[in-house]
Amino acid sequence: MVSGTLYGLGTGPGDPELMTVKAWRLVAGAEVIAYLCANGGESTALNIAQPFLPEKYQAIAIDMPMRVEREPAQAAYDKGAAEIAASLDGGKDVIFLCEGDPFFYGSFMYLYERLHLANKVVVVPGVTSITAAAAELGHPLAERDEPLKVLPATMDEAALRAELATAHTAAIIKVGRHFAKVKTVLTALNFEAQAITHATRPDQKIQSLSEIKENTLPYFTTIIARRK
Amino acid sequence: MVSGTLYGLGTGPGDPELMTVKAWRLVAGAEVIAYLCANGGESTALNIAQPFLPEKYQAIAIDMPMRVEREPAQAAYDKGAAEIAASLDGGKDVIFLCEGDPFFYGSFMYLYERLHLANKVVVVPGVTSITAAAAELGHPLAERDEPLKVLPATMDEAALRAELATAHTAAIIKVGRHFAKVKTVLTALNFEAQAITHATRPDQKIQSLSEIKENTLPYFTTIIARRK
Repeated sequence: MVSGTLYGLGTGPGDPELMTVKAWRLVAGAEVIAYLCANGGESTALNIAQPFLPEKYQAIAIDMPMRVEREPAQAAYDKGAAEIAASLDGGKDVIFLCEGDPFFYGSFMYLYERLHLANKVVVVPGVTSITAAAAELGHPLAERDEPLKVLPATMDEAALRAELATAHTAAIIKVGRHFAKVKTVLTALNFEAQAITHATRPDQKIQSLSEIKENTLPYFTTIIARRK
Repeated sequence: MVSGTLYGLGTGPGDPELMTVKAWRLVAGAEVIAYLCANGGESTALNIAQPFLPEKYQAIAIDMPMRVEREPAQAAYDKGAAEIAASLDGGKDVIFLCEGDPFFYGSFMYLYERLHLANKVVVVPGVTSITAAAAELGHPLAERDEPLKVLPATMDEAALRAELATAHTAAIIKVGRHFAKVKTVLTALNFEAQAITHATRPDQKIQSLSEIKENTLPYFTTIIARRK
């Protein structure tokens, strides 16, 4: 029997219409669909793909314990990778849904590193939150000769400060519980910044950094920061 | 009469199936389609959208003189913006096709800056060449806490060197005639790098930096560089 192919498929930032035609075609024809869900709850990526899901498919829900420690998450990826491998070995293709783009800070990498040596893997790129954010904010993310930095908010404060000290424009992703730290650094370095939460979803929210009183924002928050 | 809306629409990197469902819907229903073409020749963005074009539409071809001097290009944008504005004033929506993402180093900004104050503008983000390149190269572009730099090859050598000296991973875009300069800097700083030309198109070409003998590569070449 010919083994199946694993598709790491980017669903884009949130609006289902921002999925690519290729992603739509693959999802609509899928036999097996895998995705992460948090603490037994909903799956963001599955929600995005909802309008395109086939009537019947086999689901591989990888239940991710949302804790700071790495070990429980690694165990969940091990279990998910084993389930996906079993489907591939059985000759079925598996579509793994990933918010944004699978190779742009995506959770897909944890499955890719476990599965790509022994299986055929195709990555379908998607629209990232950083260009979706720019579209919604109504300002080019980067133009002409400008360098652009993409910085995960999970970086430690010293590293974040060092990168931002020499930045012209920065897109800071996965802000979540790291917001207070990011705000401190951006304010100290005199950046003009806007935070966009759940870009292109119905509950999208745009705020100027200075007007945010909370210390924590939702995980899917992107900050676009520019030198004043 | 209600004025029309200008849509800055990202066509993605090259494979028409990597256009978003939204881009497809808008292109398929378009009355007026605008795009750049080089020296009276073909339009890359129009070629990408080809499978989705309606049977009949009014074309606004903005003929771009591909020269180093800025003035002739600015005059072409002025003329194109005037033609687009006339359609919008006449109550027609205009779809401007842009390779990749309109707000990610896209040519759309030149029209946006001329038209957005007086007109309704909607930006439809697209898949960028940098994540498409990573998908084709089979390696995550960025993961976990890693910072990522996006650098236009048009930067001068000293600025490029300064940015790369502190970079972990860099995506260098619009390589074209700047290749020799980029190669010099990347080699001196001991980066491992691959160049991908026309990512996701039928004529896609992947080369290791060290094996390239030419001094110039096509404009739509992206280099992904990592610290060894």
